[in-house]
Amino acid sequence: MSGTARGKSPARHVLLVACADGPGLIHRITGVLFRHGLNIVENHEYVEKESGTFTMRTEVDGDAPIATVAEELRRELPKGAEVSLHAQTPKRVVVLATKESHCLGDLLLRHAAGELAATIPAVVSQYAELAPLVKRFEIPFHHVPAEGLEREAHEAELEKVIVPYAPEYLVLAKYMRVLTPGFVGKYRNRILNIHHSFLPAFVGKNPYAQAYARGVKIIGATAHFVNEALDEGPIITQSVIPVTHNQDAATLARAGRDVEKIVLSRALRLLLEDRVIVRGQRTLVFE
Amino acid sequence: MSGTARGKSPARHVLLVACADGPGLIHRITGVLFRHGLNIVENHEYVEKESGTFTMRTEVDGDAPIATVAEELRRELPKGAEVSLHAQTPKRVVVLATKESHCLGDLLLRHAAGELAATIPAVVSQYAELAPLVKRFEIPFHHVPAEGLEREAHEAELEKVIVPYAPEYLVLAKYMRVLTPGFVGKYRNRILNIHHSFLPAFVGKNPYAQAYARGVKIIGATAHFVNEALDEGPIITQSVIPVTHNQDAATLARAGRDVEKIVLSRALRLLLEDRVIVRGQRTLVFE
Amino acid sequence: MSGTARGKSPARHVLLVACADGPGLIHRITGVLFRHGLNIVENHEYVEKESGTFTMRTEVDGDAPIATVAEELRRELPKGAEVSLHAQTPKRVVVLATKESHCLGDLLLRHAAGELAATIPAVVSQYAELAPLVKRFEIPFHHVPAEGLEREAHEAELEKVIVPYAPEYLVLAKYMRVLTPGFVGKYRNRILNIHHSFLPAFVGKNPYAQAYARGVKIIGATAHFVNEALDEGPIITQSVIPVTHNQDAATLARAGRDVEKIVLSRALRLLLEDRVIVRGQRTLVFE
Amino acid sequence: MSGTARGKSPARHVLLVACADGPGLIHRITGVLFRHGLNIVENHEYVEKESGTFTMRTEVDGDAPIATVAEELRRELPKGAEVSLHAQTPKRVVVLATKESHCLGDLLLRHAAGELAATIPAVVSQYAELAPLVKRFEIPFHHVPAEGLEREAHEAELEKVIVPYAPEYLVLAKYMRVLTPGFVGKYRNRILNIHHSFLPAFVGKNPYAQAYARGVKIIGATAHFVNEALDEGPIITQSVIPVTHNQDAATLARAGRDVEKIVLSRALRLLLEDRVIVRGQRTLVFE
Repeated sequence: MSGTARGKSPARHVLLVACADGPGLIHRITGVLFRHGLNIVENHEYVEKESGTFTMRTEVDGDAPIATVAEELRRELPKGAEVSLHAQTPKRVVVLATKESHCLGDLLLRHAAGELAATIPAVVSQYAELAPLVKRFEIPFHHVPAEGLEREAHEAELEKVIVPYAPEYLVLAKYMRVLTPGFVGKYRNRILNIHHSFLPAFVGKNPYAQAYARGVKIIGATAHFVNEALDEGPIITQSVIPVTHNQDAATLARAGRDVEKIVLSRALRLLLEDRVIVRGQRTLVFE
Repeated sequence: MSGTARGKSPARHVLLVACADGPGLIHRITGVLFRHGLNIVENHEYVEKESGTFTMRTEVDGDAPIATVAEELRRELPKGAEVSLHAQTPKRVVVLATKESHCLGDLLLRHAAGELAATIPAVVSQYAELAPLVKRFEIPFHHVPAEGLEREAHEAELEKVIVPYAPEYLVLAKYMRVLTPGFVGKYRNRILNIHHSFLPAFVGKNPYAQAYARGVKIIGATAHFVNEALDEGPIITQSVIPVTHNQDAATLARAGRDVEKIVLSRALRLLLEDRVIVRGQRTLVFE
Repeated sequence: MSGTARGKSPARHVLLVACADGPGLIHRITGVLFRHGLNIVENHEYVEKESGTFTMRTEVDGDAPIATVAEELRRELPKGAEVSLHAQTPKRVVVLATKESHCLGDLLLRHAAGELAATIPAVVSQYAELAPLVKRFEIPFHHVPAEGLEREAHEAELEKVIVPYAPEYLVLAKYMRVLTPGFVGKYRNRILNIHHSFLPAFVGKNPYAQAYARGVKIIGATAHFVNEALDEGPIITQSVIPVTHNQDAATLARAGRDVEKIVLSRALRLLLEDRVIVRGQRTLVFE
Repeated sequence: MSGTARGKSPARHVLLVACADGPGLIHRITGVLFRHGLNIVENHEYVEKESGTFTMRTEVDGDAPIATVAEELRRELPKGAEVSLHAQTPKRVVVLATKESHCLGDLLLRHAAGELAATIPAVVSQYAELAPLVKRFEIPFHHVPAEGLEREAHEAELEKVIVPYAPEYLVLAKYMRVLTPGFVGKYRNRILNIHHSFLPAFVGKNPYAQAYARGVKIIGATAHFVNEALDEGPIITQSVIPVTHNQDAATLARAGRDVEKIVLSRALRLLLEDRVIVRGQRTLVFE
């Protein structure tokens, strides 16, 4: 790709570009990077034919005046181009959960092992059940009861807790409660949810009971962004496992838990590495 | 399990039992088989808890007066028990197709290789496109045009062609036309369809275009019985493959074709081996 | 299957039978169970043709004099029959680990969530690195250094720690050290290991580096019993994921960790539910 | 990426570059393409760290003097750069088979359906069994018996048949006979084989019997280039399916056939689209 002298490990930055497609874009973009001695470590492009939109994700190493580079890129690109160039640093992630421990526990283990490029400053739940688990990992646990509160009132309480942590992402680790469009709107493409079915099959409640009743031979889990319509946000990653008629809703749920936690952690890693671009109801996952 | 002398290979029979669950069923059923010197080769049971229904599938080897055995079994079992005991012989399968060749071709290849426990006496289509392919395999091809015909009138024409073949199963190998409840009712649990999505996701038309628009990360195919409601019959088998944002509806369809043909052939094999029991909207697949 | 009155939930027992195949075995076995009012909840059989060995695993509910039932079964079966009939109770499992936390952590989480039918009375390691993780879960951690010790001497130290816990199983959760045949012989078919490759591919050290060098397009993990020959014990369960040329040994290892922990936990569950029978170098997994 | 006027569909070319890694390579390469009005349709890069080798595959649309473009690219790149720029046209593929029909049949079906970017001018076998199948598709079948011939003598006979067809690739569709290094050397990275196991597990003969004996829980197939050492050529694609202890070598083989034919066809498609680059014992698959 390109080489700068590699003394002490140089800063790693991620460049994301989205603009109208046209001739010579890659050449012009890589020209700016080259002139500033930025070494391309990884590079992906995608053109959405329907809209004629060019998208590019490039990881670069090197020390350069980042604001200047971004400015030059904007000058080289068509009007309206979106350009983001930022250092790859750990992100703050607040986790919301309810009573099930498997997804939350998996995130806490990875966090404790230093495996996530993230800090988890707090876990929030409308119930107290998961407090002991979170305490094991010495992370603040906030119990924000929902009982007797309208949805908006509960969310106002949630926000009082969450906002001070200034999280870049909220992760719903089996947070079994619908969020209002008002709340969701404040975290556009920044709320990650795990849905315990292979969406768009079995939206809504009790997907494992639905799967049993329908007699499917495969079940799965879906990690997606939350937007206004329940279970209809852009999908980031999905995984499935085969099942048989012998498994009832309870054993389907047990088998599904392993899929859920792996899918959620995988999606979070993709977000933390800036590999996910949202285009309408679809995501581009550059990996 | 149990052993009879195995000189020249004895007849293989399949026993299917469904009845109200109760004490000692397996003991009583296997007692009848044992007294008649029938050797159990393979055995599966399932109890559906909601309805308290016991189901058993047993393959037996041995020479015994089959009608008598079945009669004795009925006497031992609770009133209303369904008992089927029949020799495992090749079945007649008429295939319906439209214009796509991959599923049909795969069936014809397996048929020609002697891999299917079935004879395919004919292929039927509302179009002429697949005639040359079928001709390669020296099987009668019936072109039954649908143009200008009401659905019922077309199906009447289909039946004129199909009925003389007395098929045990109809296989819709990408037969892209909805059948009426009247037609379907004549072949209850005997019409096998391949749907080119992971049902219940993307019912109806153009599932690959739907999958692209929804941005799923996995696509699949579903082999199921056809019943009155479109794409809602009992599922027999399903399979999926991972996909990326790079694949558009056309390349999704190309990738999906491989899944479709394997899933359809696998489901047909299960039917031909009497391994599929329908219970409401679910199937039991004893394998 | 069969029904006894179900007041307070009756005891659940697992019957395992292995004997020479012959006529009427299922009938005779289920006869004994029926006469004692034992209700069959789940039932599987397998006949190994090479050796003519019949194997059966049956779960039964009901209150009966278990020793008497087992005795009667032995009388009904061919000489040399192995009969085991025991209550399904939680088992004691000592975990051995080295420095990697993902498999151990996953087991500790499941244990804490009450998801395992097991108690983990202790974790043992030749290094101290995992002590903090184990401490989070309030389980004794034994650091048994291997430095400067012959293999046998180290194992003698291990045994001093392990034996008092009287474990039914030892789980090697990425225990990166070969055990001597002498040690292994004391826990025949009771040591569960996770190997980080799809065995028999890439036995021995650094399987991810081997996989990268060989350029495979799929990697996996294998849970197996440990026997005298390294990585050659009977396989219990395996799982794989697709990989690309873009992944080097380090990123293969990262992706593989998720497979490893799920495969290990799944195999342990199968052991705890008495679903695994060893036949020579193969396992029968009745599920 | 870049846009040229798209009147009648312009020629599609594939550019493959391999050279020492260094600064600004992508910028310089795309600069040449841009100056000649070649529109980038798809683009992938890879840097092999061990050797410091940069590899790039780019699909371009547009009408340009191809020899000139290639010449300019060579001038821009480090000494020793490999540059290939050629039109994407159908390739000639001679298929070798033995007695099993499933892989060959699948290729013939796809060929007849116009699904392969290839012509199959002939099929060759050391046996006559598959002649009728090939005849169905009106393709010349050459029976080249091996009986009584030394390996080299048989291969000389094979060459007499094959060479006149001037094939770009030879596909071994279950050609169950080892080729000599002398023969293989004439078709370096141009012989595609399907091995019926998940390599490197179970090299050599009877992999399904080996898999049964070893008791694996997953089986698979591997499409790879043939080189001097048996079953050790660079792997192109692999796929697997789960199996159980219930499946013996024969039923494993039956299940495996579906995997084999899909894997082989998929690998062939990758070759026909120039998506596979060989680097030592590894392949880069740009997709």
